[in-house]
Amino acid sequence: MPIIKKPALFTCLSPALLNLYDINTSIVVVIDVLRATSTIATVLYNGAKQIIPVDSVDDCIRIGKQLDAITAGERDGKIAEGLQYGNSPFEYPESFIKGKTLVLTTTNGTKLIHMALQGGAKKIITGSFANLTVVCDFLLKEKKPVLLGCSGWKDRVNYEDTLFAGAVIDRIKDQFEMHCDASKIAHGIYQEAMPDYFNFMKNKQATHYHRLSSYGLEADIQHCLTPDTAPVLPIYNEGKLICG
Amino acid sequence: MPIIKKPALFTCLSPALLNLYDINTSIVVVIDVLRATSTIATVLYNGAKQIIPVDSVDDCIRIGKQLDAITAGERDGKIAEGLQYGNSPFEYPESFIKGKTLVLTTTNGTKLIHMALQGGAKKIITGSFANLTVVCDFLLKEKKPVLLGCSGWKDRVNYEDTLFAGAVIDRIKDQFEMHCDASKIAHGIYQEAMPDYFNFMKNKQATHYHRLSSYGLEADIQHCLTPDTAPVLPIYNEGKLICG
Repeated sequence: MPIIKKPALFTCLSPALLNLYDINTSIVVVIDVLRATSTIATVLYNGAKQIIPVDSVDDCIRIGKQLDAITAGERDGKIAEGLQYGNSPFEYPESFIKGKTLVLTTTNGTKLIHMALQGGAKKIITGSFANLTVVCDFLLKEKKPVLLGCSGWKDRVNYEDTLFAGAVIDRIKDQFEMHCDASKIAHGIYQEAMPDYFNFMKNKQATHYHRLSSYGLEADIQHCLTPDTAPVLPIYNEGKLICG
Repeated sequence: MPIIKKPALFTCLSPALLNLYDINTSIVVVIDVLRATSTIATVLYNGAKQIIPVDSVDDCIRIGKQLDAITAGERDGKIAEGLQYGNSPFEYPESFIKGKTLVLTTTNGTKLIHMALQGGAKKIITGSFANLTVVCDFLLKEKKPVLLGCSGWKDRVNYEDTLFAGAVIDRIKDQFEMHCDASKIAHGIYQEAMPDYFNFMKNKQATHYHRLSSYGLEADIQHCLTPDTAPVLPIYNEGKLICG
């Protein structure tokens, strides 16, 4: 039997490192666990027609008006001025969001989607604990090179995105080649954290845990660290995130 | 009694992230465990007069000629063409290096020293397991903000530099404020790795372990992961690294 070479898996721990990786030929998984990609999965799972990720508040307002869509987003963890809604999955129950279009801008996650596009990515999906199993099943099925792209916080490496990368790696590693210390570091964090991600983040006093809990958003953190609450596959397609 | 605020400690996991940190007011610890900063400590411990870190092979050859000094360095883990010596601590016993000047260029470590200088660093030291205790004692004595700067591999995050950052953090963390996930990640790696760093690197099949061991350099790796073999403090001063 011929030896079939496994596809490569890399983890990019910060958007500022994205240019080091082979974006063009990889499936890029954009990860922003607290909270953009958790909210994206929730919004689509709850029946939104589409999400338009934009990288500035001005674009968000402009496109929101053009499309008569809901504008949402945050800067520094709070609702950005001029937008209608924030970046919490709890703001988007089915009764509110079903059939609607959301225009979304966030500090880190939507920025990384645009960086990946500018870098030539041809296939972008978003990942979070909310859709962990769906993401892993997709990557296993596709059998293509994978780049797990952590959004971090203003280009700094953070715990929660690296932890999620580690959770994905734990499930798919046997089917990929992983010559990548960052991936192994992510997997080590996952092994240290499991199964209680919330207490791990709390005990570590992770920076984003600290930031969001100081705004009273512990329930958001808890929810965003719970696997498979929104089992959909958000795929980027011609300016929109839609269910794959 | 007044509450004395502890100085901040940050860890920068890749040279490409250096601009995110407050370089100017921090003691910058340049870390390149395999092998630049291990060799720097060893060379100074064995009595070299000084080391001139340069960022290109051409500069290394030119300055080496000017000063009638020893030229040394590597690219991609091997002796760079046109230079006399490489980047292994074993090449520099006291009988050879005592009283001499070494001009050194490496893929990652000497590059980071120059980036820190360009970024406005006023105090740069180099750290490695070879001088772990001396580095920690210095940072504890100075009581100033600290930036642990990992050289990585061509801007990618690597295990060994992050591991060393974690070893420093383990010894000094109680005296510093650490609002920095990267520092906590580094400390977690240290806790996972200790006490047998070599087997940790081997079992993880860390990329640089893989690279150097394929060149037959396992003894170098082993040596560079051994604490306190060269207890000196290399400090950058007007173009030279000298014993502090």
